[in-house]
Amino acid sequence: MIESNLIGFSTSGRGDTFTVGMNPATDEPLSGQFPGATIDEMNQAVSQAQRAASVYGKMSGEEKAEFLNAIAEEIENLGDALVERCCAESGLPEARILGERGRTTGQLRMFADLVSEGSWLEATIDTAQLDRAPVPKPDLRKMLVPMGPVVVFAASNFPLAFSTAGGDTASALAGGNPVIVKAHGAHPGTSALIGEAIVKAAQRTGMPDGVFSLLHGSGKIVGQGLIQHPGIKAAGFTGSQQAGRILYDLANQRPEPIPFFAEMGSINPVLLLPSAYNTDTAEMLAGSITMGVGQFCTNPGLIVSTASAELDHFVQVLGEALSALDSGVMLTERICKSYNEGVATTLAQAGITVEARSEGGDGPNLGQPTLAYVSGETFLANPEFATEVFGPFSLIVKCKDASELEAVMASLEGQLTGSVIGSEDELVQYQSAIESMESKVGRIIYNGVPTGVEVCPSMQHGGPYPAASDSRFTSVGTAAIKRFVRPVSFQSWPESQLPAELKSENPLHIWRLVDSQWTKDSV
Amino acid sequence: MIESNLIGFSTSGRGDTFTVGMNPATDEPLSGQFPGATIDEMNQAVSQAQRAASVYGKMSGEEKAEFLNAIAEEIENLGDALVERCCAESGLPEARILGERGRTTGQLRMFADLVSEGSWLEATIDTAQLDRAPVPKPDLRKMLVPMGPVVVFAASNFPLAFSTAGGDTASALAGGNPVIVKAHGAHPGTSALIGEAIVKAAQRTGMPDGVFSLLHGSGKIVGQGLIQHPGIKAAGFTGSQQAGRILYDLANQRPEPIPFFAEMGSINPVLLLPSAYNTDTAEMLAGSITMGVGQFCTNPGLIVSTASAELDHFVQVLGEALSALDSGVMLTERICKSYNEGVATTLAQAGITVEARSEGGDGPNLGQPTLAYVSGETFLANPEFATEVFGPFSLIVKCKDASELEAVMASLEGQLTGSVIGSEDELVQYQSAIESMESKVGRIIYNGVPTGVEVCPSMQHGGPYPAASDSRFTSVGTAAIKRFVRPVSFQSWPESQLPAELKSENPLHIWRLVDSQWTKDSV
Repeated sequence: MIESNLIGFSTSGRGDTFTVGMNPATDEPLSGQFPGATIDEMNQAVSQAQRAASVYGKMSGEEKAEFLNAIAEEIENLGDALVERCCAESGLPEARILGERGRTTGQLRMFADLVSEGSWLEATIDTAQLDRAPVPKPDLRKMLVPMGPVVVFAASNFPLAFSTAGGDTASALAGGNPVIVKAHGAHPGTSALIGEAIVKAAQRTGMPDGVFSLLHGSGKIVGQGLIQHPGIKAAGFTGSQQAGRILYDLANQRPEPIPFFAEMGSINPVLLLPSAYNTDTAEMLAGSITMGVGQFCTNPGLIVSTASAELDHFVQVLGEALSALDSGVMLTERICKSYNEGVATTLAQAGITVEARSEGGDGPNLGQPTLAYVSGETFLANPEFATEVFGPFSLIVKCKDASELEAVMASLEGQLTGSVIGSEDELVQYQSAIESMESKVGRIIYNGVPTGVEVCPSMQHGGPYPAASDSRFTSVGTAAIKRFVRPVSFQSWPESQLPAELKSENPLHIWRLVDSQWTKDSV
Repeated sequence: MIESNLIGFSTSGRGDTFTVGMNPATDEPLSGQFPGATIDEMNQAVSQAQRAASVYGKMSGEEKAEFLNAIAEEIENLGDALVERCCAESGLPEARILGERGRTTGQLRMFADLVSEGSWLEATIDTAQLDRAPVPKPDLRKMLVPMGPVVVFAASNFPLAFSTAGGDTASALAGGNPVIVKAHGAHPGTSALIGEAIVKAAQRTGMPDGVFSLLHGSGKIVGQGLIQHPGIKAAGFTGSQQAGRILYDLANQRPEPIPFFAEMGSINPVLLLPSAYNTDTAEMLAGSITMGVGQFCTNPGLIVSTASAELDHFVQVLGEALSALDSGVMLTERICKSYNEGVATTLAQAGITVEARSEGGDGPNLGQPTLAYVSGETFLANPEFATEVFGPFSLIVKCKDASELEAVMASLEGQLTGSVIGSEDELVQYQSAIESMESKVGRIIYNGVPTGVEVCPSMQHGGPYPAASDSRFTSVGTAAIKRFVRPVSFQSWPESQLPAELKSENPLHIWRLVDSQWTKDSV
């Protein structure tokens, strides 16, 4: 474990402030002192990335795939050392970390397959019409090209899958961009181990020095410094709405603004319809609310239904299911403190009733699963109830009728997901509330829970603001690569000089839109 | 010609400030007084658009196509009245306006075809794998959906093709979004005529009231008011860097930021290689520099080459070709004044030599074609030379060698286009300068000029900042629709409730990415 910043293939630790990993399950410090990057070191990392960009950006899909696959292998080669450190730093159980490691290497290999196959870059060809009147139509060919150095802000809640070699890094590298990761202070050791694996992979697959750097340090100095650096061309972020907005504003206020992708908070409304008031639904929801100690951006924080004796009974069953579950160790002392404060603030509002609060579990930094309810009227009158409480908390809204339920849906801000649990007949019955939900989410789920985000082409993980800063892009799935590339058209460009992807014979055998038809044929 | 704002299907003119059309060829006012929208009228237009959004956003591709085609027909039905008014307000010749009208109706019909066919919305399906371990994979289906009311800021230099029913309006409507156009003060009569045509088309094809509104008035009150209105979800703009940046900042500083697409300035560098020093090239360039009195965003404002006696001779030939052309009437008095000031400022810089200045032409507001040159060293020392002069002006940079030429390319900001004129051998010889150019443009052209922007799927009209505010999108061609839509995933959604585009049998027979393969087959 290198206790240093990784600047390209070199290490550098000239800073005099240090990050130390903490075990949230014991509140004890872990080994290692990670020096925060200095402004000089940050500038050096950006310069290296800029130099690397012109080489790395021209690499073939095959070459980038080799690199991404090598990163996955090197992560696996870290073996138990990674799993142990990651569990210790995050308080998450081994099974979860093993699963998350699988997702992380899976994502890297998915992007490797994507760029090795090549069709992702939307090669689009319109052939010339030299006899067109009044002017001939030239030959035009378009494809996606890299934007340049990308900064990735690692997330605390996925120390592997949304951190140093997580989805943002994998998609930015796949797109042909050098990456500088701002390590998350909650898992510096995990970051260092993964960073070293990436550097090893880069070296053994012949990537340019500077294709990857890892900087420790404060968000205020290193993070804000990176986002404002003229050499940085885009950034990805997963975290709180407050931090996301600060960085978003900095990115947009630059003389040359850059795309900044923030995946921020969401309360993920669940529309619970009467036919779903049963034990299976209660257990499914209790599992989703407490999964990962509620520390998922897709945690179902709001359950909306219509008031009735049957609903009251269902809420009781859900409360019992939740109470039966132990509290879990949260990621950091700060997150646990913030969870407790959030729950306290919400429960202090007028008109709320606590239905259940789990008491099980031992040790520090426990997040107690908590369920409460309010009436639709109370909910609509107080925006505090629509504020995310990050952790195993969920609020039930008992609406007096379908029209109040629709008003509750209409009152919500942008969300990552919305779920509907009920029968197909009820879908028709509640159509207008569901359409309202659809208009403000990135993903809509039927008879399921929002936790469990598939990594595939049809995934949309993002949604209208404030769930994400730009609802047109996703941070999960193959389409995440689209955040870090831009189209370039080649007009009448000679065949010999065209990129392989656009050559007439289609040597890479990729899907291309030729004269408005998808085909793998030559032109 | 309705001398009023169009708020949905109603007219309203309660404001007490008025826009009057001016004929730049005579400096005389034209008929009609167009009242600026009041804040109330603006709010009313947005409310109407919000109401219309939920209906219009659910319309089928066929229905939207019918509307777009009807707009094209109603524009044609305006006949000579439109052409005359547009020529009078813009100072542009009839042939140009006829051509631009054809482009405008052509764009509308292109988007009608696009949405009627339906494959544009990137339907993406990943089928379920219920036997996957450890957890089953759910069925996920994704497609693009409208974002909501869009504001379009009309451009002065394309009074038809980038104005009231221009590319931004057509693409936003095609995407399923109601549109509010902020009319350009330079052609209020043309805007009113076209606005009326759109309303007629909306009424006769059964579109909801509020699907389109047209507001006259000042950019400061109406324009800035619209961009800050919470009911507006995106905006498109074509114009100056200064105005674009003001609106961009407002859009991003909103509590809920919205995508703002500004297509701003560009000097469109041309890399002129020695084999191209001939009369044909000179005539092609002179035509491009003076086309539309230089009032195109793709006007070639910078020609870069290596110093030699041959280049000097070419510059002389180009200067003669330019001098032989008459000055043309510019779009407005203000644009002409700004052109003259821009030329004067540039020519006042140390180290610049005027090669040619056309003297032909009669009347007010003439833009004199002007050609000047500087050395590479002079260019690199003074950023003023890289500033756009909007009009028929071009600057030649005579570089002492290939390395200085590369430095000149590397010094440039983001551009809409870059052109290379030379032989294929020279392309190889100057590869690194060309790669540098490619990294900062949206379209790169071989042996051609940047003016003449094809409207087709492979067009990229946009480029790194400041040419455009977001280089990942284009304002010309079918892909322009992608600016105003966002993806939504449907997870395990029941077949009966899926949009037609995502139903298993593929009833619309569109191209879909099913399990990572493009196909028109059913699932």
